[in-house]
Amino acid sequence: MLRAEVAGFARRHMSGQPRWCVALSGGADSLALTAVAADILPTTALIVDHRLQPGSAAVAETARDQAVRLGCVEARVLAVDVGSAGGPEAAARTARYHALRAARGDAPVLLAHTLDDQAETVLLGLGRGSGPRSIAGMRVCDPPWYRPLLGVRRAATVAACAELGLQPWADPHNTDPRYTRSRLRTEVLPLLEDVLAGGVAGALARTAAALQEDNDTLDALAEQASAEVTTGAGLDTARLASLPGAIRRRVIRAWLIAGGARGLTDTQIQGVDALVSAWRGQGGVAVPSELARQRLIAGRRDGMLTLHREPV
Amino acid sequence: MLRAEVAGFARRHMSGQPRWCVALSGGADSLALTAVAADILPTTALIVDHRLQPGSAAVAETARDQAVRLGCVEARVLAVDVGSAGGPEAAARTARYHALRAARGDAPVLLAHTLDDQAETVLLGLGRGSGPRSIAGMRVCDPPWYRPLLGVRRAATVAACAELGLQPWADPHNTDPRYTRSRLRTEVLPLLEDVLAGGVAGALARTAAALQEDNDTLDALAEQASAEVTTGAGLDTARLASLPGAIRRRVIRAWLIAGGARGLTDTQIQGVDALVSAWRGQGGVAVPSELARQRLIAGRRDGMLTLHREPV
Repeated sequence: MLRAEVAGFARRHMSGQPRWCVALSGGADSLALTAVAADILPTTALIVDHRLQPGSAAVAETARDQAVRLGCVEARVLAVDVGSAGGPEAAARTARYHALRAARGDAPVLLAHTLDDQAETVLLGLGRGSGPRSIAGMRVCDPPWYRPLLGVRRAATVAACAELGLQPWADPHNTDPRYTRSRLRTEVLPLLEDVLAGGVAGALARTAAALQEDNDTLDALAEQASAEVTTGAGLDTARLASLPGAIRRRVIRAWLIAGGARGLTDTQIQGVDALVSAWRGQGGVAVPSELARQRLIAGRRDGMLTLHREPV
Repeated sequence: MLRAEVAGFARRHMSGQPRWCVALSGGADSLALTAVAADILPTTALIVDHRLQPGSAAVAETARDQAVRLGCVEARVLAVDVGSAGGPEAAARTARYHALRAARGDAPVLLAHTLDDQAETVLLGLGRGSGPRSIAGMRVCDPPWYRPLLGVRRAATVAACAELGLQPWADPHNTDPRYTRSRLRTEVLPLLEDVLAGGVAGALARTAAALQEDNDTLDALAEQASAEVTTGAGLDTARLASLPGAIRRRVIRAWLIAGGARGLTDTQIQGVDALVSAWRGQGGVAVPSELARQRLIAGRRDGMLTLHREPV
């Protein structure tokens, strides 16, 4: 059943691929994915050793052996150094994706995120409150990344491993209450399932898919609108003001990012938007820059939104 | 502080109103709202007696007395009969809004929903998984309904009552674990606050506001697009196919509802959409009708989406 799911996914989204990589942690999800992937196309297993836990090298070696036995044409361990920026989970993710990107060559990479992972991601995004973009979750196809199991429950990968006689690795992080995601998994989602009488993980995943589509449509419309409001000097406020709010703020967000802004909050975007939608002669709005020791100031002059840099 | 909030709200959203109504349950939220509302404009308190709990008439009378003492120009108890359609919470809501609508005359009605209520509504919508529309929560302005406290924490209304020496009624339903909303309030949200390190209610409310704006923009675009794809015979599939998915499905949804469909699920809309976006000669798609003993069939013929009725 998992094989049919992945084969169908490959036909729909990756047709013509001669080979692919699989990101393998050794856990049930990625082990099951590796097993079926290797059965469909020539597969390279990429095993990231985060070197955060004692014995991580041995875990990676075991996963490599399993990949070879499952018929992968290649299986490589990628040892990485995890930094600390953004907290332990974000830093591990950054290091992992960096290593996978460097190792994949020109092949696409299958990731074993399941419907349960998607539900956790939506809840994490909700907790941040940074808007529809952050609760739209992970994408099925986001080249070079592909997630064929995003509609599959975690229980199905565990069952597939048992069926294939595979012994998955149980990452202690997955149940460690110091990690937000593991508490969402082990405490919040089971309680929500109980309170809302079931089906919550699927509901969160469906919501994420619908939000992605809404978001993509609005982003595409904002891109068209951007071309119409941008001049050499900045953004034309009269034309901006005629756009619907959801598109206007996306145009402003994209303009700020193109101008070097990073880590924008919703409040900052609203502040810049107010220079258009609630103009009463107010001063410029400071937003963080991609460069240390400087910030950007978005202001309004002569009917234009303009951006300039300023040392911090 | 609550007074400034409501007065500011009235200036921004209800300017020129000579008077208003407040829906008063006797709980802390609506009692605090009644107190500040009566201080701003001539206020009619509308107290719905759902007659579901023993002693509900006495609770309503107490609330009426409080409203009069708070300076309301009028205070009326509306006794209603709650049906059973859609479950106890939905049936009570239907009866309540019906009574308020009938009693308000042409005055707007202030509702005392707080930021905490909004957070619970978003979580309830998530659990249903029926898409962005259902997690966008309640609207600040949805004439004749106005919600001046949607950005205010429940704790602030409790504090306001204490300050004013008001004794709010504690509805036992609010902590009754048989009600989904009360379990979200007493179990799920506190756990989420703990796991996600705080700020969850505010984050959910911010997300709801952003989703409402996205949704409104897409709905408006879909309304424009509808005019362009609708012919006497139905919807033109070639023109539909050129629309972005998020707009195309909204056009289809609105067309189905205009044709008499009710209680549409996301799956049904996707099924009708597939007649356009994944056409391979498949048969019609049945959707529920507003009329008992009939259903609607959406089908495709000669490049048009058409709708016909069929007995069940």
